[in-house]
Amino acid sequence: MKFKILATLLSLSFFSFSQDDTKQLEKIYKTSLTNGKSYEWLSYLSNEIGGRLSGSLNAELAVEYTKKELESIGLDKVWLQPVMVPKWVRGNPEFAYIETAPGKTIPVNLCALGGSVSTPLQGIKAQVVEVQGIEDLKLMNRSEVEGKIVFYNRPMQADLIQTFEAYGGCVDQRYDGAKEAGKLGAAGTIVRSMNLRLDDLPHTGSMSYGDTPVNQRIPSAAISTNDAERLSGMLKIDPNIKFYFKQNCKQLKDVQSYNVIGEIKGSQFPNEIIVVGGHLDSWDLGDGSHDDGAGCVQSMDVLRLLKETGIRPKRTIRVVLFMNEENGLRGGRKYAEVAKKKGEKHIFALESDSGGFTPRGFSFSGPDYKINQILIWKPLFEPYLIHYFKKGGSGADIGPLKNDAIVLAGLRPDSQRYFDHHHASNDTFNAVNKRELELGAATMTSLIYLIDRYGLNAIQSQNQLKD
Amino acid sequence: MKFKILATLLSLSFFSFSQDDTKQLEKIYKTSLTNGKSYEWLSYLSNEIGGRLSGSLNAELAVEYTKKELESIGLDKVWLQPVMVPKWVRGNPEFAYIETAPGKTIPVNLCALGGSVSTPLQGIKAQVVEVQGIEDLKLMNRSEVEGKIVFYNRPMQADLIQTFEAYGGCVDQRYDGAKEAGKLGAAGTIVRSMNLRLDDLPHTGSMSYGDTPVNQRIPSAAISTNDAERLSGMLKIDPNIKFYFKQNCKQLKDVQSYNVIGEIKGSQFPNEIIVVGGHLDSWDLGDGSHDDGAGCVQSMDVLRLLKETGIRPKRTIRVVLFMNEENGLRGGRKYAEVAKKKGEKHIFALESDSGGFTPRGFSFSGPDYKINQILIWKPLFEPYLIHYFKKGGSGADIGPLKNDAIVLAGLRPDSQRYFDHHHASNDTFNAVNKRELELGAATMTSLIYLIDRYGLNAIQSQNQLKD
Repeated sequence: MKFKILATLLSLSFFSFSQDDTKQLEKIYKTSLTNGKSYEWLSYLSNEIGGRLSGSLNAELAVEYTKKELESIGLDKVWLQPVMVPKWVRGNPEFAYIETAPGKTIPVNLCALGGSVSTPLQGIKAQVVEVQGIEDLKLMNRSEVEGKIVFYNRPMQADLIQTFEAYGGCVDQRYDGAKEAGKLGAAGTIVRSMNLRLDDLPHTGSMSYGDTPVNQRIPSAAISTNDAERLSGMLKIDPNIKFYFKQNCKQLKDVQSYNVIGEIKGSQFPNEIIVVGGHLDSWDLGDGSHDDGAGCVQSMDVLRLLKETGIRPKRTIRVVLFMNEENGLRGGRKYAEVAKKKGEKHIFALESDSGGFTPRGFSFSGPDYKINQILIWKPLFEPYLIHYFKKGGSGADIGPLKNDAIVLAGLRPDSQRYFDHHHASNDTFNAVNKRELELGAATMTSLIYLIDRYGLNAIQSQNQLKD
Repeated sequence: MKFKILATLLSLSFFSFSQDDTKQLEKIYKTSLTNGKSYEWLSYLSNEIGGRLSGSLNAELAVEYTKKELESIGLDKVWLQPVMVPKWVRGNPEFAYIETAPGKTIPVNLCALGGSVSTPLQGIKAQVVEVQGIEDLKLMNRSEVEGKIVFYNRPMQADLIQTFEAYGGCVDQRYDGAKEAGKLGAAGTIVRSMNLRLDDLPHTGSMSYGDTPVNQRIPSAAISTNDAERLSGMLKIDPNIKFYFKQNCKQLKDVQSYNVIGEIKGSQFPNEIIVVGGHLDSWDLGDGSHDDGAGCVQSMDVLRLLKETGIRPKRTIRVVLFMNEENGLRGGRKYAEVAKKKGEKHIFALESDSGGFTPRGFSFSGPDYKINQILIWKPLFEPYLIHYFKKGGSGADIGPLKNDAIVLAGLRPDSQRYFDHHHASNDTFNAVNKRELELGAATMTSLIYLIDRYGLNAIQSQNQLKD
């Protein structure tokens, strides 16, 4: 028994890391900060192409551009993986106001939610029922809701340190709000934007009607946090005020698009695949710089930085730019489906889809002994102010790769400003800081380098050897 | 001996922290994020008052405003501490260009450095000598420099993770550049702005002539990083191009100003003083939101948050808003001088003067055993993503309090964006994120709470007891 513990300790220290790794990380960070490509690539995606909603011309331009750029960095293989994606279009700019008395109106900043139906041509004008969430609505009678606009106004919880938790605690209002309100005969729904800040920008995002028949689907939109506060205040004074909105968005037929994939073939274990990726599509209001242009260009730079710093990977390193994360996840599902069909062995997948802000670390899901192996590398990252290595979520696109053996990981950047920009017109290039983006790319590259060097079976196999 | 070790361990655990502390920190963070005042105060300082250069009307308005606000939160005592400060004024906007041929000019974004003399009324036009720093200049002959404009162009080092280190490695060019170039008969100096980003904004900051006689002082200015790159590129093509600049800044007589001070008297050890502060003055180009409006309002909120969360401190907690950090440090020196004269015992001082970005932790200087005691509290901060507790610098204003017994500390926010704004016209309110500012205030309050609760002699006195 004592021998076994000793052997385990030895194997742990053997498989932990070496002076070489310290030097390699130094090289990776230095190269990213002084000779990175991510910022230049992001500038093109954001400033030359712009918002890249699935099925749009811009999305196709982004496919072409990133394929070409991946080809230019000398990977072993670059290809497009076809995937059918939904095509929803916003149509004309939305228009909305609060009507306090006939002819007395206050304009409202509103945007249709992705997937919503349009209003009738003349728009909808109705009284408003404010609720703090779907739970509230479910306690109401049909008579209280029928013909009215349901206004979901539960704010994101400001005292949660991790803003993604605050988002998770609110987003059901946006996603399921119309489906639930429709059941009680509501005329439409508006939701307070998923934004921790008070400002004038409406934030879009996906919504679903579930299995609601097409003719019973009601239009759904988001209003800015300032407008939500104003409307709520006015309703307290006069519950009879009316709300008007008009949108002519439309769900068209699915169209063909692509995941963009590139890889460096592993020199020793080519059949062990390590994926790094982000999603190439974005919402249409901004240019999708943080969500998720940043994750795409960082993932692309992981492969380039490995090459630039002289690494010839043992395992196959694959960058995947997923299409249609925002309103369908078709790219992520297709990638996993094809991988399964081909019997590919994915040992690790890392997604960056939480903005291009200063990286703080990673969250992981997968078998404990593998995650514990990764945790041993934590001290290597401390000089780069990377402290956060925890169990937790990874990324929507890589989720379908989940099985008993794989480790999935998500880059965790600082999240405090993320929801100021998320799905809104200010998710733009100027909100991304070059160094922060490059530090993220270097942090991702460093982890991929270590996973490739040591694999993820080291400790278990050592223990088994000694048993 | 064994007993002594055991006793030390026991005392360590006894003095570490308790469940109460966990709850108190929760309360502090929640209150700051849901009911903080720092953002509102900063809005006033930045948007209603603006840049607060020492000796200016705005600086006096800021003294009045913060004194009034501190009075409003019910401290035991609020007062102004008189201090004479330098008064330097920028005068008319500067004007500069590169002249490639007679009549062919390219405009340059330039600002005078704080403390510089003006150019002659008609400005200075001369050839340019580019150097990578003072060391380069010192190797040159008088004949190479005389009558020319010395252009210091060593950039901040991009591969340093901590941007303050990159600043420290460059700022001698700004501070001492004119003094050194003057010795070789230069007509003036221009320096590449202390900015890691390439953009069009010149960054001001202090400079010194040392003991250079008044009639030998040469004008000194900063140009934007884009202009520095352009000028450097053009000099490579044609070393004979000329640079022109004109500024009419002026050093006036010292004027009276004030440190603004407020305190909560300690209930058990009123003679043990804990200071928290920032500096109220700022440069004049922006509104001084990050440098250091943020540090001031966070420090003010520390005392308010202690009160709001039901803490009656055992020791005296004092907020000090120092005047004239930027171009003289007179406020910091005066505060320490008066404290010494009065025989006050300061046990701890914390400064926030590194911007209002997401807090990452603290750096400390002082006796090891006291810093080690503070390190024990680190796990209490992990839920708030505060991981950085290291030895290092504190803050310029609290520096003069240094002695053998005191612990000095600096809040360490994320530093990646700081030098994009530092001393430039974009150091403005809109660059500060409310949550990031509030998280900083909560982090500072939490540390002050712990220092107050446990003091900083716990471990040593326990050890001594057991000896």
